[in-house]
Amino acid sequence: MEGRLLLRLSFLLLLVGGAMALLLLLMHSGTQEDQLLAAASSVIGNHTLRKQQKKSVLREPRRGRDMFFEQVDHQKEVPHHPLDPLTIQEFSKVKRILSNYNPDTSSSIHSLVLEEPEKGEVLAWNKGKNPLPTRKASVVTLVGGRSHQLSIDLSSGHVVQDKVSTTSGYPPMTIEDMTAATAIPLADAEFNRTIRSRGVELADLACLPLTGGWYGGPEEDGRRLVKVQCYSMEGTANFYMRPIEGLTVLVDLDTKKVVKISDVGRGIPVPKAGGTDYRYESQKKNQHHKAGGQRLLNPISMEQHKGPSFKVVEGHQVRWGSWDFHLKADPRAGVIISQASFRDPVSGEPRSVLYKGSVSELFVPYMDPSDAWYFKTYMDAGEYGFGLLAMPLDPLNDCPRNSYYMDGVFASSDGTPYVRANMICIFESYGGDIAWRHTECPITGMQIREVRPKVTLVVRMAASVANYDYIVDWEFQTDGLIRGKVGLSGILMIKGSSHESVPMSRGGGNEEEDLHGTLLSENVIGVIHDHFITFYLDMDVDGSNNSFVKVELVKQATEAGESPRKSYLKARRSVAKTEKDAQIKLGLYQPSEFHLVNPTKKTRVGNPVGYKVVPAATAASLLDHEDPPQMRGSFTNNQIWVTPYNKSEEWAGGLLVYQSHGDDTLAVWSERNREIENRDIVLWYTLGFHHIPCQEDFPIMPTVSASFDLKPVNFFEANPILGMPPNFEMDLPVCAAASSSAYGS
Amino acid sequence: MEGRLLLRLSFLLLLVGGAMALLLLLMHSGTQEDQLLAAASSVIGNHTLRKQQKKSVLREPRRGRDMFFEQVDHQKEVPHHPLDPLTIQEFSKVKRILSNYNPDTSSSIHSLVLEEPEKGEVLAWNKGKNPLPTRKASVVTLVGGRSHQLSIDLSSGHVVQDKVSTTSGYPPMTIEDMTAATAIPLADAEFNRTIRSRGVELADLACLPLTGGWYGGPEEDGRRLVKVQCYSMEGTANFYMRPIEGLTVLVDLDTKKVVKISDVGRGIPVPKAGGTDYRYESQKKNQHHKAGGQRLLNPISMEQHKGPSFKVVEGHQVRWGSWDFHLKADPRAGVIISQASFRDPVSGEPRSVLYKGSVSELFVPYMDPSDAWYFKTYMDAGEYGFGLLAMPLDPLNDCPRNSYYMDGVFASSDGTPYVRANMICIFESYGGDIAWRHTECPITGMQIREVRPKVTLVVRMAASVANYDYIVDWEFQTDGLIRGKVGLSGILMIKGSSHESVPMSRGGGNEEEDLHGTLLSENVIGVIHDHFITFYLDMDVDGSNNSFVKVELVKQATEAGESPRKSYLKARRSVAKTEKDAQIKLGLYQPSEFHLVNPTKKTRVGNPVGYKVVPAATAASLLDHEDPPQMRGSFTNNQIWVTPYNKSEEWAGGLLVYQSHGDDTLAVWSERNREIENRDIVLWYTLGFHHIPCQEDFPIMPTVSASFDLKPVNFFEANPILGMPPNFEMDLPVCAAASSSAYGS
Repeated sequence: MEGRLLLRLSFLLLLVGGAMALLLLLMHSGTQEDQLLAAASSVIGNHTLRKQQKKSVLREPRRGRDMFFEQVDHQKEVPHHPLDPLTIQEFSKVKRILSNYNPDTSSSIHSLVLEEPEKGEVLAWNKGKNPLPTRKASVVTLVGGRSHQLSIDLSSGHVVQDKVSTTSGYPPMTIEDMTAATAIPLADAEFNRTIRSRGVELADLACLPLTGGWYGGPEEDGRRLVKVQCYSMEGTANFYMRPIEGLTVLVDLDTKKVVKISDVGRGIPVPKAGGTDYRYESQKKNQHHKAGGQRLLNPISMEQHKGPSFKVVEGHQVRWGSWDFHLKADPRAGVIISQASFRDPVSGEPRSVLYKGSVSELFVPYMDPSDAWYFKTYMDAGEYGFGLLAMPLDPLNDCPRNSYYMDGVFASSDGTPYVRANMICIFESYGGDIAWRHTECPITGMQIREVRPKVTLVVRMAASVANYDYIVDWEFQTDGLIRGKVGLSGILMIKGSSHESVPMSRGGGNEEEDLHGTLLSENVIGVIHDHFITFYLDMDVDGSNNSFVKVELVKQATEAGESPRKSYLKARRSVAKTEKDAQIKLGLYQPSEFHLVNPTKKTRVGNPVGYKVVPAATAASLLDHEDPPQMRGSFTNNQIWVTPYNKSEEWAGGLLVYQSHGDDTLAVWSERNREIENRDIVLWYTLGFHHIPCQEDFPIMPTVSASFDLKPVNFFEANPILGMPPNFEMDLPVCAAASSSAYGS
Repeated sequence: MEGRLLLRLSFLLLLVGGAMALLLLLMHSGTQEDQLLAAASSVIGNHTLRKQQKKSVLREPRRGRDMFFEQVDHQKEVPHHPLDPLTIQEFSKVKRILSNYNPDTSSSIHSLVLEEPEKGEVLAWNKGKNPLPTRKASVVTLVGGRSHQLSIDLSSGHVVQDKVSTTSGYPPMTIEDMTAATAIPLADAEFNRTIRSRGVELADLACLPLTGGWYGGPEEDGRRLVKVQCYSMEGTANFYMRPIEGLTVLVDLDTKKVVKISDVGRGIPVPKAGGTDYRYESQKKNQHHKAGGQRLLNPISMEQHKGPSFKVVEGHQVRWGSWDFHLKADPRAGVIISQASFRDPVSGEPRSVLYKGSVSELFVPYMDPSDAWYFKTYMDAGEYGFGLLAMPLDPLNDCPRNSYYMDGVFASSDGTPYVRANMICIFESYGGDIAWRHTECPITGMQIREVRPKVTLVVRMAASVANYDYIVDWEFQTDGLIRGKVGLSGILMIKGSSHESVPMSRGGGNEEEDLHGTLLSENVIGVIHDHFITFYLDMDVDGSNNSFVKVELVKQATEAGESPRKSYLKARRSVAKTEKDAQIKLGLYQPSEFHLVNPTKKTRVGNPVGYKVVPAATAASLLDHEDPPQMRGSFTNNQIWVTPYNKSEEWAGGLLVYQSHGDDTLAVWSERNREIENRDIVLWYTLGFHHIPCQEDFPIMPTVSASFDLKPVNFFEANPILGMPPNFEMDLPVCAAASSSAYGS
């Protein structure tokens, strides 16, 4: 029992931590650093492969990588670019410097990343000509309940700044926080009694450390809290479908004590395990039964017999078509795109578009006010770390053939570096779309049928925030467009219920409304919730100084006798002077374009050179602005914001989001109403989803996606892909079957 | 000169008519019917190929078709399904019946298509068991200024109905109408003088027959009118960029006389030809110059070494994955999808989803009230014929390898059938997207990384409405989702201007606003305009009788002491009783889901079986409801409408749209406020675009796309693609280069 429980424990502890946790265990058994690295890598390398083979599922042996790309040796890595992330050697150096500076920080490191040089320095840096700017590390530690933001100079080896935070909130939980949190209830007699009274064996327990937000209660003051809820793993890999409903354990992360156990779910059965497993191994069994309904599809693959057209230079610099940009993994943002520039089709000169783009924060409020649910209003980047939750991608399925896989190198809570392999992939995409076309009538002197296929470059990561999976794509197009796309998949957060069928009276349906969601299966409710993903977009359109221009389409009535028409639409341009001019709520009947222009640059005929942000399907937060979760997530009060560039304003919910009161958010900064005309400005765009679950989301959700575009608007003199060639038969590959096949056509 | 002018003419005449026009010429030279067919086919067959080879551009020899699909011999075609379009033989029979019935119709046939059997008959029809329902033809003719709608029984050989229209408006123009219209001005001395005074040679003239809508003027009453505007073809294939601005010739289509010449553009220069040609041949010349800016991409191709997974049975029945549907070309709608059903993953039984889906009408108002522009408010389906303007697709560029190409067989104005080859393509698409995924933390007993790639089936056509190209995709997904997608490309409708640069005073910018658009190049203005595409969606969700349910997400305040939360969102369901309950305007801050449910069918746990229409990015018409164009386009007053099924209500702008007064539109029908609960109902969705042109749209536009989804919502008991397998390396093809290559990597 002991051993079994321990194994389970180690599992629980790891639910959120992913690979980091393995390290943790190894560290406890006193392993050396490079062994750690090996181990960490192996988590997705041989380890995975072995596991899979045991299940007789063969995984792609990184074919793309082997064929066209070199594997990076992180042990030997050195920085080549001012924005390159910290290397293994640099992490180790930081660790040494810190332990000399203040031993208390040795296991309380909540964030450790490169401190990017001043923007001016980076822009001035000239590859080859200049040496790299001084390498610095930015560290957030928690000492004696106070958050410290340290700046460490790697050349001098000194801590050059130690700023104690003045705002509310704490840094993201560490793995120790989470592991301890999920373990603590098991030491509690009342908890164990309750679990058994629900008919669940402790050995089958899976518990999650759920962030509780902040509601202004006195018990929340001056201490870091987390709420633990548990599930039964008995009979399914998909334990999320088997909640022990209504049982919430409030835990103090620092005293490591149970503060309060709330058990309001007695009598609510744990939903059945049947039909919840989604793994191929378990599905294969009923393939034949299914065959009637599911005609299997023949294989289809994007093939590039000459290899991909993009290059990854010195680890992080991506070159494709007319695009150049810097790419790196970040523990909090996930993916960071930097210095994206587009080579002008006429001059051949690179022109800047985006200095830095990343996911800044997420906000995921659930719509159930009851005791076990009201607090579920997650801010995944600032509470858990969006990048830390990005698991290794699955070659051939997460990303197509010929993808390049980039690893993340992160620090665990004592500064020990580890590798998150295959965290990001880069690939070219062609799905049959058309870049541009025109056909004239087929006869006459000019027989014209000119069509160009559309090929794009995709940068992808997938973060698994416990149950949910977020697929984040940055798509670069040959015509200068950048698309930010978020796909939602994974598993719903489920509420246990005594209902086995939808309560009747569908007319009024009040009873049903009180479910706060949809009954997906017997005793299983998918609770209504929203997802908001706020993007940080430091646009540098043909230079750093830009202006935000709102181009409204307004209905114009014609004057008497002016025209047989009574009305038409007119474009009215207004330049935002200050931040409040750029607080934008979208409306179908108040259509506008939103341009970022360089007021000092014009096209040949005099249009200001610009890019526009083009929203697509999205959702707005409707919560009360005075509701504590919305105060913390107030960066979703508008869909678009523009702020003057400020190095410290990077995280829309604040640097310290955990239990924050909302006193350091984008909304607060923007209220300062600073001048933004002809300045270095930052665009913030929030992508939203309302999710009313349906049975198709059970037991795992088909991907739902939404996106926004950054699109050139008079940035070029003309269509930049005028010169691209069409496809010719002779250039396409000739393909044949490989050896044996797993399934027929 | 004569001959040269004649050639030009024949060209002008054909601008809108496409292949039909070739027939016209041949007919004039008295060719026999089957020669016509051959000729018509050859337009895109050898003819094209020869042309291309002359330009040393090799086109794809229909590889996909040859490899995996049989070519249809239209001469031998016979109907297999009640909805199969009229065959060559049937067209010829109709022609004979008509000439016996009323010789006056012999050259006044404005529409000739299959008259689909009653819906009940079609649903009851049982392949193999029942014979085909009686084949009928529906013909619209114009005799003595009156529109007749004839119903012809092909078995009895009789005209069984001859309905004279009672509403305003006329049927679409015939090719004769258009050819005559564009020729008439050239016989006018004043016109010729004007042209020469603009410095344009008559031989370089390209003229378009532009529909003028209706504005209630007395001169519009009782006669069919068209407005002719002309361009200079001198020095470019892209004559659209060289308007003879302000010159509008009003022509009577029946008397074939010039009614009025309006010349308000004297002094506006014809914009220069330089930089307007977009053809690869002319672009190739400056490839090397461009090479600095444009790194060429290596070839990329979707390869299916085992062939496509879809089948086209008996010409029009498509089977793919769990989907079955009927597909045909239509001269007015373009593509018609019928009887789309999805095989239930559990029972294996087909379940109906969509009885009929098609583009019903388009509305494209330009936003310039001046004399030469105010009337440009096109309704392309009802005025020109959206399907008639769908040109042959370009293999490898319009559609990828392994596409199946479906032809259209249409009738010219005297009933003579002809073939529009390669009008529709069908292909499978995989661009690297993910159907669903979940990763667990990589260690523990359950090491989980389950990901499924996303493959879809696309049905595509591309209509070239003179300058503009509309790419219409119907995308079918394995999870039961149907996406309707419209891509806009092609060439802008340009306004000539004396401006060579943008008028200053950007602050107020009033001067610039009066351009009614954007200066794209010297003397070239891209005028602001909207595009609306209204879809007819006869949903039969698991049966014909459905209800429309609005699921509103409303903010709910918590009661005192109920919860630390102040607010949350609640889903409130309301069933639409009558049409007015289903007149929907979308709003970001009034979020709703829009379900079509079968009230008589429930899932195991009691949710009503349904589909929802999911709008994405779209635009609404802001024109004054009393403005004549908006009265005619009033079907765009809402984004969503629901009407009871009525066989005669298929065209949102009315059957007779040409010069209609808006007295027979969807808006008028819906005002009758009929009952729609638990009935056979039709969903109407309008997709909209606002287009403020930018220089990137010059001289040809990169594609801009928008879409909407029809998505299962509790239609299935669970995720229907749970059982689909992941990709395995061993199943993917091994590819090599073909022989020689046109361009390197």
